[in-house]
Amino acid sequence: MLSRRNPQLNAHGELIHLLSIEGLPREVLVQILDTAGTFLSVNDREVKKVPLLRGKSVFNLFFENSTRTRTTFEIAAKRLSADVLNLDIARSSAAKGESLLDTIANLSAMHADMFVVRHSESGAPYLIAKHCAPHVRVVNAGDGRHAHPTQGLLDLYTIRHYKPALRELTVAIVGDIVHSRVARSDIHALSIMGVPEIRVVGPKTLVPADLRAMGVRVCHDLAEGLRDADVVIMLRLQNERMSGALLPSAGEFAKSWGLTPDKLALARPDAIVMHPGPINRGVEIDSAVADGAHSVILPQVTFGIAVRMAVMSIIAGNAA
Amino acid sequence: MLSRRNPQLNAHGELIHLLSIEGLPREVLVQILDTAGTFLSVNDREVKKVPLLRGKSVFNLFFENSTRTRTTFEIAAKRLSADVLNLDIARSSAAKGESLLDTIANLSAMHADMFVVRHSESGAPYLIAKHCAPHVRVVNAGDGRHAHPTQGLLDLYTIRHYKPALRELTVAIVGDIVHSRVARSDIHALSIMGVPEIRVVGPKTLVPADLRAMGVRVCHDLAEGLRDADVVIMLRLQNERMSGALLPSAGEFAKSWGLTPDKLALARPDAIVMHPGPINRGVEIDSAVADGAHSVILPQVTFGIAVRMAVMSIIAGNAA
Amino acid sequence: MLSRRNPQLNAHGELIHLLSIEGLPREVLVQILDTAGTFLSVNDREVKKVPLLRGKSVFNLFFENSTRTRTTFEIAAKRLSADVLNLDIARSSAAKGESLLDTIANLSAMHADMFVVRHSESGAPYLIAKHCAPHVRVVNAGDGRHAHPTQGLLDLYTIRHYKPALRELTVAIVGDIVHSRVARSDIHALSIMGVPEIRVVGPKTLVPADLRAMGVRVCHDLAEGLRDADVVIMLRLQNERMSGALLPSAGEFAKSWGLTPDKLALARPDAIVMHPGPINRGVEIDSAVADGAHSVILPQVTFGIAVRMAVMSIIAGNAA
Repeated sequence: MLSRRNPQLNAHGELIHLLSIEGLPREVLVQILDTAGTFLSVNDREVKKVPLLRGKSVFNLFFENSTRTRTTFEIAAKRLSADVLNLDIARSSAAKGESLLDTIANLSAMHADMFVVRHSESGAPYLIAKHCAPHVRVVNAGDGRHAHPTQGLLDLYTIRHYKPALRELTVAIVGDIVHSRVARSDIHALSIMGVPEIRVVGPKTLVPADLRAMGVRVCHDLAEGLRDADVVIMLRLQNERMSGALLPSAGEFAKSWGLTPDKLALARPDAIVMHPGPINRGVEIDSAVADGAHSVILPQVTFGIAVRMAVMSIIAGNAA
Repeated sequence: MLSRRNPQLNAHGELIHLLSIEGLPREVLVQILDTAGTFLSVNDREVKKVPLLRGKSVFNLFFENSTRTRTTFEIAAKRLSADVLNLDIARSSAAKGESLLDTIANLSAMHADMFVVRHSESGAPYLIAKHCAPHVRVVNAGDGRHAHPTQGLLDLYTIRHYKPALRELTVAIVGDIVHSRVARSDIHALSIMGVPEIRVVGPKTLVPADLRAMGVRVCHDLAEGLRDADVVIMLRLQNERMSGALLPSAGEFAKSWGLTPDKLALARPDAIVMHPGPINRGVEIDSAVADGAHSVILPQVTFGIAVRMAVMSIIAGNAA
Repeated sequence: MLSRRNPQLNAHGELIHLLSIEGLPREVLVQILDTAGTFLSVNDREVKKVPLLRGKSVFNLFFENSTRTRTTFEIAAKRLSADVLNLDIARSSAAKGESLLDTIANLSAMHADMFVVRHSESGAPYLIAKHCAPHVRVVNAGDGRHAHPTQGLLDLYTIRHYKPALRELTVAIVGDIVHSRVARSDIHALSIMGVPEIRVVGPKTLVPADLRAMGVRVCHDLAEGLRDADVVIMLRLQNERMSGALLPSAGEFAKSWGLTPDKLALARPDAIVMHPGPINRGVEIDSAVADGAHSVILPQVTFGIAVRMAVMSIIAGNAA
């Protein structure tokens, strides 16, 4: 049989890199979520420290700066007892004109065991996974507009935690869909898990109709998008969008698309509200909603540590 | 009985945050000093590594940059076997417009166990302690002009180490008192421990007369301030003061207020000289004094590691 | 007997600092190489984690920025189970006008066990080793144009690994010799080990004739320099040289001095090609050579971790 194997999986279909949720089997997603669950203790949501990556070296390679995401991976790796090295890439060999692949080859030769990569170019983590030594594992921590798979997985974990009947859910993702790697990863995760209705909600400039090709319902009306939703995922409005041609202003956006208690009342009474953070209070989300009874924004953060631990321990344990 | 409880203490009067020395019971100060002593071995001043914070995550949140102070906390936390995360706050979510409390809520959700906070705004560590999750502990590493309690405690440790009869001492604090959180914390620590004479010494612009309200003696004459002192604490002259209206020049300041061997001869023959560092040689302190027999500036640094270990291990061990 | 003792050795001739390869006994070099070998497992070149520096604090003091070199030392120290502290020197007390020796005295008082120092001034690590406390060890990670001893040692390790008969070898070092601390350290290492022919090869502006005083053969013709060489060490052409009076342009340099497969054919058929990295592809070295069968550039990186572990564990184990 002729087929190009998914570069994230070994010959046994086991996860060896996490590059994108797209194309992953449902069983792999379930394995990650179930493993994450074992890292969370029942009572206090405390994440326990375990020796699964003792003696392994995890390199954080953030070509695009993100202290928050880097920190979550650093905590997750340290809770797995790994040695963590944060490379200040902007000041490093890259600045001396060394190519990405030469940098990776050198770090691999230092016996890095895992690269956590954020890059402004879509596909950079694929390139790294393709060229690194066989013992090295790669986790995509966000590449361009393409994917942010650990965010997709932690969102999936959060949804399954509060709404286990995934095959009956309506999930609304609201905001700047077209520029969002979070939205893309969420849509793939939810589709694979069989969520029947996924809505992408926002103005035409940020939610073009051709997104329908991803199997989602496109809504240019917030009320339509929120009505009877079980889950509402608000996306962060990037500051750089506000001053462009795509949007009139943050205030205008908030009036039309910001989530207020009134608008949230259109969703199901037990709906949960999510956000990848950091939130813009009063722009895409009202403080009354962010801090309200429906919000699960902070549990998302806690689950995120456990999900990243799960991903790292699973891929480290599978042979190439 | 109606009373507003000290936010640093739990219902049993035990230390759960270290925000300021002001208002702490004498017993708590003694507990910290005694615990610090156990971390210092008798012979060589070597600080031993202990597993008291194994599995705990300590976050250094330095909103105001200070490599030196951050390093002392990082060493102290690592000697307690904690996982330490240094957040480059200036480049992080704060820069994306996230509020201080949202940043803290997020880091708490990552199951931070302790925040070590330096902030240019007085009171910021109080705000954090008030709003963080119950399992989280806060240490103030310097807030505005308000307090620098671990410096106050290490100064107290040093004084008690060399001059155990605290109730008989005369301590002179010399220099820019009004802008100094170190001076403020020292004065509180010494007052609580019953030091009978605390002098603040410097020009009227830097040592206003209303400091008397803190129970100290104000001296605008260096000879008067130093005469028969057991302990002389020289403060660092901040560069930014030198070019303002408060002071003519560094040279002028040195001539009037810098500590030379001649001037030090006014103090008691066995007086000790302290400085929080980094020193300005030839400005507030002469090299002959800084490197001389009376100087205990480097032992202060060593004791500072042990005192920070003591504070962190004590507050981590007390239930909220 | 009147003699000034080598500051790198204790009274028993044992290594206590690594400041320069110059003047080290052959036995010490052999001890380092042999110890490095024990850190490399036979089959997979994996470097194992060992507890030799457990409880010790290693401070990386990079006054001159080099993420790559700092990372290799950080990995090596963590594989030895040390606590590693990276000091951002440019933003630290140094910026507050504190002297180098005051900074070192303060860090020593925090009970640093080892300083890894890179500095743009030749001799800075000597100054530190001379003034630090007796329990502190110093490793030179590159000082000015003077020395880069761990690079010299890893180069020596690499050469001995592939060409054990050191006393029969011809080694050619090609490029900007005069500005290169790597070249200087390589020449000392090879001379001490009895390599009979060491050639320095490049244009007269970068390879002055007075280098002959180091006991090497000066070649201003690439063909002459490469002919029958067993080992070819290409140096990185620093960007800042290319725009000066010393060189016409990177393209011109490449044409005359860059290593291509054609030119490499002049060396022995089993010659190895080395480079300290990061490489300038198409300038001093052709991609066909860098990625070709003769290249041992990536093994150099792996050996470099083991050599740094060896240096750190040996000097930590010897009493001052």
